[in-house]
Amino acid sequence: MIQQHEIPIRVHYHEVDGQGRVHHAQYLNYFERGRVEMLRASGISYRDIEESGTLLVVHSMNVQFHLPALFDDSLVLRTRINYCHGARIEHHYHLVRKHPDRDAEDTLVTATSQIASIDRSGRVQRLPKMLQLNIRTPKG
Amino acid sequence: MIQQHEIPIRVHYHEVDGQGRVHHAQYLNYFERGRVEMLRASGISYRDIEESGTLLVVHSMNVQFHLPALFDDSLVLRTRINYCHGARIEHHYHLVRKHPDRDAEDTLVTATSQIASIDRSGRVQRLPKMLQLNIRTPKG
Amino acid sequence: MIQQHEIPIRVHYHEVDGQGRVHHAQYLNYFERGRVEMLRASGISYRDIEESGTLLVVHSMNVQFHLPALFDDSLVLRTRINYCHGARIEHHYHLVRKHPDRDAEDTLVTATSQIASIDRSGRVQRLPKMLQLNIRTPKG
Amino acid sequence: MIQQHEIPIRVHYHEVDGQGRVHHAQYLNYFERGRVEMLRASGISYRDIEESGTLLVVHSMNVQFHLPALFDDSLVLRTRINYCHGARIEHHYHLVRKHPDRDAEDTLVTATSQIASIDRSGRVQRLPKMLQLNIRTPKG
Repeated sequence: MIQQHEIPIRVHYHEVDGQGRVHHAQYLNYFERGRVEMLRASGISYRDIEESGTLLVVHSMNVQFHLPALFDDSLVLRTRINYCHGARIEHHYHLVRKHPDRDAEDTLVTATSQIASIDRSGRVQRLPKMLQLNIRTPKG
Repeated sequence: MIQQHEIPIRVHYHEVDGQGRVHHAQYLNYFERGRVEMLRASGISYRDIEESGTLLVVHSMNVQFHLPALFDDSLVLRTRINYCHGARIEHHYHLVRKHPDRDAEDTLVTATSQIASIDRSGRVQRLPKMLQLNIRTPKG
Repeated sequence: MIQQHEIPIRVHYHEVDGQGRVHHAQYLNYFERGRVEMLRASGISYRDIEESGTLLVVHSMNVQFHLPALFDDSLVLRTRINYCHGARIEHHYHLVRKHPDRDAEDTLVTATSQIASIDRSGRVQRLPKMLQLNIRTPKG
Repeated sequence: MIQQHEIPIRVHYHEVDGQGRVHHAQYLNYFERGRVEMLRASGISYRDIEESGTLLVVHSMNVQFHLPALFDDSLVLRTRINYCHGARIEHHYHLVRKHPDRDAEDTLVTATSQIASIDRSGRVQRLPKMLQLNIRTPKG
């Protein structure tokens, strides 16, 4: 399974709030998309995981909002696995906006989340085999 | 079971889009709340209905947006049952904003929806007994 | 300006409700994306339109929900302009899910919307020149 | 201005995801509501603050998800100001579900956020006078 992945994100109209900026809660949806697409890039369907009885739930999340994203912005989200062992995965997220005309980018949002693997009754259980990466690098 | 009901709705920040207006898709969430609260006012929990195996799904919806609602507006939603028989319920919605200082109100959104009663496998089935109202008034 | 356009839509996790189906209000966000991308395919940025002082607001919407979309479904949305003249555009939407293994597709949702062109103060005004298509085909 | 406040929150249908649980991003909307209502309880309208040219933006957020909230749950959100000085406010959030039949409650989500005061151009500026609380208690 790959440990880092990058997806493009286009900001949609309904994701922007009355300040003309992407509403801060919306970024958590982007991060979720980053996790699902990183799995897909490894040939793993999160839908299949859920159907097999394992839920991956967000246990904690830590977000820094540096600069606002605006409607129609074309963003890049980089998702990385920092830790993956037992029943826990730690992801790191880095959302940037590329400069349209020069080779540079602005960091908009960074975040870290802890995901726990549970069964349908809510009990913590080891990650399914295909997700066992055994990564234990120190937190970044 | 009652056939019309009224709830207050406060517009939250994240419901507003970049135009400073409630995003048009958000009104469908308000209508859903109107249906759930009308049931509750009759002593019926929609959660219990779903747990008993019946899903009420929206089959069609027809919405007219007359005037925009703004952040922090204090609105009133009136929900009414036009038709309720077999496996189908027709609701009508009327969302208004009261004038702060005089006895008048503006109509913001009106809508009609057709709800169908289905089982977990997606098959149409008669409404549960407690929802059988046998209303067949002509459409309004 | 083109009059019909097709975009792929992947169903994200947060768009699904407790029935495991895409929440019905979410489809209106998909339609909005269809309109914005159809403009982009003609070289027109909806962000630029808003910045120039014209808002395109949804005046009415009529939606039929035929079959549910599920998490991670890969959909296709076809957006078409039925009418475009003066201050009004009528769009038609057709959302389908392709069969994974044979050459067929299921219709999930169809809809029609009326969009009005207004200025910042809310007054109806003629569509900006680049949007003047002068289409007056009878409604489909 | 008061420094802690409590609001009731009813979980709506569209806030729940395919796991039957409130989607984790949704809690940030609840917190925002907690902040707005705490202001209102002090006689301050956040709408007026924005109209006067001050935006309060979320600079960082730290959330722990302990137990899931479910559709139709009746929750209580306690919002508290930990720090308020210069251009920064730190809030703490405690979301609980009361037991229906005995005098106890479950903690569902706790969080801390840093809010910054900026002007329309995005520059940090001191909080408006009415929000100057001069609270500098150590972080909780």
